[in-house]
Amino acid sequence: MILTEIDHVAIAVHDLEEAIRYYQQAFGAEVHHREVVERDGVEEALIKVADSYIQLTTATRDDSPIAKFLETRGEGLHHIGYRVTDCKAALQAMVDAGARPIDEIPRPGSRGTTVAFIHPKGSHGTLIELVQE
Amino acid sequence: MILTEIDHVAIAVHDLEEAIRYYQQAFGAEVHHREVVERDGVEEALIKVADSYIQLTTATRDDSPIAKFLETRGEGLHHIGYRVTDCKAALQAMVDAGARPIDEIPRPGSRGTTVAFIHPKGSHGTLIELVQE
Repeated sequence: MILTEIDHVAIAVHDLEEAIRYYQQAFGAEVHHREVVERDGVEEALIKVADSYIQLTTATRDDSPIAKFLETRGEGLHHIGYRVTDCKAALQAMVDAGARPIDEIPRPGSRGTTVAFIHPKGSHGTLIELVQE
Repeated sequence: MILTEIDHVAIAVHDLEEAIRYYQQAFGAEVHHREVVERDGVEEALIKVADSYIQLTTATRDDSPIAKFLETRGEGLHHIGYRVTDCKAALQAMVDAGARPIDEIPRPGSRGTTVAFIHPKGSHGTLIELVQE
């Protein structure tokens, strides 16, 4: 089994501060890490739950994939990040199984991770991110 | 912090066997638990990832919420299950924070759990399930 953890579940939100406040009020959650990822046009706030994260994500510019998602589908579950030991090997295993990679080779993600995204088409409608810490 | 684990991420799929096969081929995943939940009109296959689950879910009848979801949005991420120690207390905390419960009181879920669903409206577009083992 290649997956070692559900690394994170990403939730697209319009207003990051408001979403953080909701998770604080509802669950007593605290933000563990926060980061603007310029390359992807997103700002993330990570809430730690055991060894996984809830990743509240908003767009920082209009051409960001999150901006497009929010426009067409509204707020909600955006993608799932699976933690793996070796991102390159996991990507290859997925491709061998018929997956359609968005990233042909692993690239830097947030938190100093190495990541690769897989297209929802070919993966039962689910945008998947492979995350190597 | 009320949440002790990301209990599961639920993915709605048309064909459960095919989805299981994909997760097996791509990740070497195995089905840990399988259950038809008549009340909800769903069949689930749980893949264990550390202390969490990927819940592949399909509809068993046309009036199931999963059937409606598949018809309108297609396959993909359906809801997130957060594990809690006390479902009733967690539900109350969410309601106090402005959440809109679907289940006013906790009820039986799959795997012998006690659960309560929270409406996406009021929770930043995310259908949330509170899960007490």
